[in-house]
Amino acid sequence: MNNPPVPSASAPAAQLFPQHIIAAKRDARSLSRGEITAFVRGATDGSWADYQLSAMLMAICIRGMDTDETASLTEAMMRSGVIADLSAVRAPKVDKHSTGGVGDKVSIHLAPMVAACGLAVPMMSGRGLGHTGGTLDKLEAIPGFRTGLTLPEYRAQMEKLGIALIGQTAELAPADKKLYSLRDVTGTVESIPLITGSILSKKLAEGIDSLVLDVKFGAGAFMREKARARELAETMVAACARLGKPARALLTAMEQPLGRAVGNALEIAECLDCLRGRGPADLMEVTYALGENMLLLAGVARTAAGARARLENAIASGAALEKFRALVIAQGGDARVIDEPEKFLPQAKYRAAVVAGKGGCDDAPAPGSAGILPADGAKRRPEPAGKMPALPGAGAFLNAYVASVNALEIALAALRLGAGRVRAGDKIDHAVGIDHLVKIGERVAPGGTLAIVHASSEAALALACESVARAIAFSPAPVAPPPLLDEVIGAVDLTRPNST
Amino acid sequence: MNNPPVPSASAPAAQLFPQHIIAAKRDARSLSRGEITAFVRGATDGSWADYQLSAMLMAICIRGMDTDETASLTEAMMRSGVIADLSAVRAPKVDKHSTGGVGDKVSIHLAPMVAACGLAVPMMSGRGLGHTGGTLDKLEAIPGFRTGLTLPEYRAQMEKLGIALIGQTAELAPADKKLYSLRDVTGTVESIPLITGSILSKKLAEGIDSLVLDVKFGAGAFMREKARARELAETMVAACARLGKPARALLTAMEQPLGRAVGNALEIAECLDCLRGRGPADLMEVTYALGENMLLLAGVARTAAGARARLENAIASGAALEKFRALVIAQGGDARVIDEPEKFLPQAKYRAAVVAGKGGCDDAPAPGSAGILPADGAKRRPEPAGKMPALPGAGAFLNAYVASVNALEIALAALRLGAGRVRAGDKIDHAVGIDHLVKIGERVAPGGTLAIVHASSEAALALACESVARAIAFSPAPVAPPPLLDEVIGAVDLTRPNST
Repeated sequence: MNNPPVPSASAPAAQLFPQHIIAAKRDARSLSRGEITAFVRGATDGSWADYQLSAMLMAICIRGMDTDETASLTEAMMRSGVIADLSAVRAPKVDKHSTGGVGDKVSIHLAPMVAACGLAVPMMSGRGLGHTGGTLDKLEAIPGFRTGLTLPEYRAQMEKLGIALIGQTAELAPADKKLYSLRDVTGTVESIPLITGSILSKKLAEGIDSLVLDVKFGAGAFMREKARARELAETMVAACARLGKPARALLTAMEQPLGRAVGNALEIAECLDCLRGRGPADLMEVTYALGENMLLLAGVARTAAGARARLENAIASGAALEKFRALVIAQGGDARVIDEPEKFLPQAKYRAAVVAGKGGCDDAPAPGSAGILPADGAKRRPEPAGKMPALPGAGAFLNAYVASVNALEIALAALRLGAGRVRAGDKIDHAVGIDHLVKIGERVAPGGTLAIVHASSEAALALACESVARAIAFSPAPVAPPPLLDEVIGAVDLTRPNST
Repeated sequence: MNNPPVPSASAPAAQLFPQHIIAAKRDARSLSRGEITAFVRGATDGSWADYQLSAMLMAICIRGMDTDETASLTEAMMRSGVIADLSAVRAPKVDKHSTGGVGDKVSIHLAPMVAACGLAVPMMSGRGLGHTGGTLDKLEAIPGFRTGLTLPEYRAQMEKLGIALIGQTAELAPADKKLYSLRDVTGTVESIPLITGSILSKKLAEGIDSLVLDVKFGAGAFMREKARARELAETMVAACARLGKPARALLTAMEQPLGRAVGNALEIAECLDCLRGRGPADLMEVTYALGENMLLLAGVARTAAGARARLENAIASGAALEKFRALVIAQGGDARVIDEPEKFLPQAKYRAAVVAGKGGCDDAPAPGSAGILPADGAKRRPEPAGKMPALPGAGAFLNAYVASVNALEIALAALRLGAGRVRAGDKIDHAVGIDHLVKIGERVAPGGTLAIVHASSEAALALACESVARAIAFSPAPVAPPPLLDEVIGAVDLTRPNST
């Protein structure tokens, strides 16, 4: 502070010194492609110190980036490592990415459905630090399933099968690994350009032609506000467009868990239900919407109805299930899981049904509670697995409607059961979780089942049952199920050649 | 990105995790005293990683801090190390701090002037990375002068002499050392709350009762804009008030170098001129204004005129010079410098006068140059030291007025001569620099001296002469010297007991 700063007239390319690039973003200036490339290179080769990277991340977090900058960031991050060469795969290569939410297991059955329609689906997923594990953790509930393919194995499988569900290899987008590890501990996760760069750099490095995005909003989503989710969707679609990769984004609501199962093996079982045409309505609605857009974007269908028909046929014909079977076998998994999931998927030692108590329906609404009755009358009936009583049916005299299912509360219950990780490296219990979960709008009689909890100990079972009961609220009047699909961002180019 | 963030319900005091405090400031929230203390403690004990500290610094840099936060930051940084105990010193302990500018050597003669008036001046200075070295570098031009006193030596000298001019000891405000080293390389230097915390934490840890600040603005200052300098001045005065230490800040203009000398030994010689009543008018104007406010703030004078009379008397009586002599002796310096500076201060091997050429005065103003004639006609006359010709006097037929002296250009010339450091650890040449520099408004005849350059080689001499010539512009019409003192921020409490 004793003297004015020394102008570095003698220093070559002074404007590319880390502190000058950082200061430019601090002052809300748009960065050039060269400046952004220098930052990403600094993250990759270590020529920027961690404290410089994190100062830059914070400046980006607060000041934002315009579309050009975001595209430059995405491109530089994508080019920080290998870009998988899938030129030998002749089918259109389309992937899907979801910003994630409670019970979101769509990738697992969507990928084989779409692959059964003739597209190539080169899907690399994150393991994710969160309530219920990522797609990889769910797949690893299948005994023997290998998610850690090498790049040559990945390419070979894509050429042979047209589908791979694997983890990100270390060669892809190393800048993202570095930057994400810093963002996680410096309060810079919630930045639309940084999220965009992180998601797209990895997806584009897979070697895809186009991408469908599922951007979730609502109580159970990473982004609570719809406006912010739309901003992210628009940013990602625009960045893809600049980089020559057509993309569409679906805005979908996450007010309650998606489907009826939360927990790794339980979700695999639900995906198998989906592939057999028995999936929960809400889960299938999102799955079809994403699949239709993948087919449209790849140009193998001209209308949503045409795409839908192809996807339904892939299920009805069994082609989607057989594609999944081939995938499981190719990646070393025990394929017996597919036909007898209840036998070959991991099973939890303890199970109990959470049922609606009389209190939940008989009591008058508390003053000021706007007609919503709390589930405080819910009862637990812990029983060792195998000795579980038959689930009580509906039909009692008084009944109520499910008004809300708190996705975050359900996710935390699953996390405490051991279905997710608190810290990277934590071991996951694939067997535990929650299934048969009620959905908003369903009518429940006293004694009716709200959910079944799967746990590895009686104590965990008791705690989880309480959490699940607390997560569900009722209304004496009928409640409409919340809409799921909100908006589609990004147009489809219908002038492509290989349309059906 | 695959799942919503995990709420850390089970973690104790979750809001004090670094990333939560960082995120709060990222979102422009005011931080509590506890949060700020946790951040500063994290910087001091290493419990926050460097990348977390720098993300926080960037968030503060962009989002700012209110007065409460800035005071908490200053206090926490001050308390991060030892606070010098000067309770055995009975005189009011007042220090002065300047944000610095080209040719600012005020501390060196102001401190003994004020000490000669009965105040205690415990002055710790920075070495400063900049054009011309900090106060410590200037003092070290005096052979033998020790700036590295230990804390016990410092206390003993304050008790005995009432004055010390030393470097910051390692025990004081260690958080500032850590944070400053990160700010320097992360584009987070220019933040008013961070500058305030950095300056005040060290000054308050000296053990002072009150503080006078010289906040400079203009072309040669760290802060170019007056509005921003005023904001810094107001913030520092307000933070001092919250911490119970009365402070005043003078806003002073820095449009040209202060005084006529730039360079360490040359500036010491100029300080000795000041102590003998022969200092340049602009330098003395700033010196008296600061000194008056120190005396007023300490309560040993009731009016500015009374304070001024005491300071003038300290010079006229020789008391200020003798106080400086005692200081030099106490800190191991060669006191012969005081009476024979030209003999005992380091001397540069080469000297040359930069003189006004005929062209600078004869030529008609170029079209569009608004009557300002460039100094492109300036001539150099390099001569080995000792063989320097008598300086040409004025009196030629045509003459011109100095319209501007570019402080930054002069500073860079001094830096290239070796008077300052480009990198921490660079060795300084105490002998080199520029003196006899003309001031704005002075009349110069063709052949008249604009400055004398002191260099260690002929090549450096030639380069510096060119820079100095380039730095000076002329006008055919008279030019008024720019006002120096602009505004005083902060009131003096006249109800104090020990006024004269």
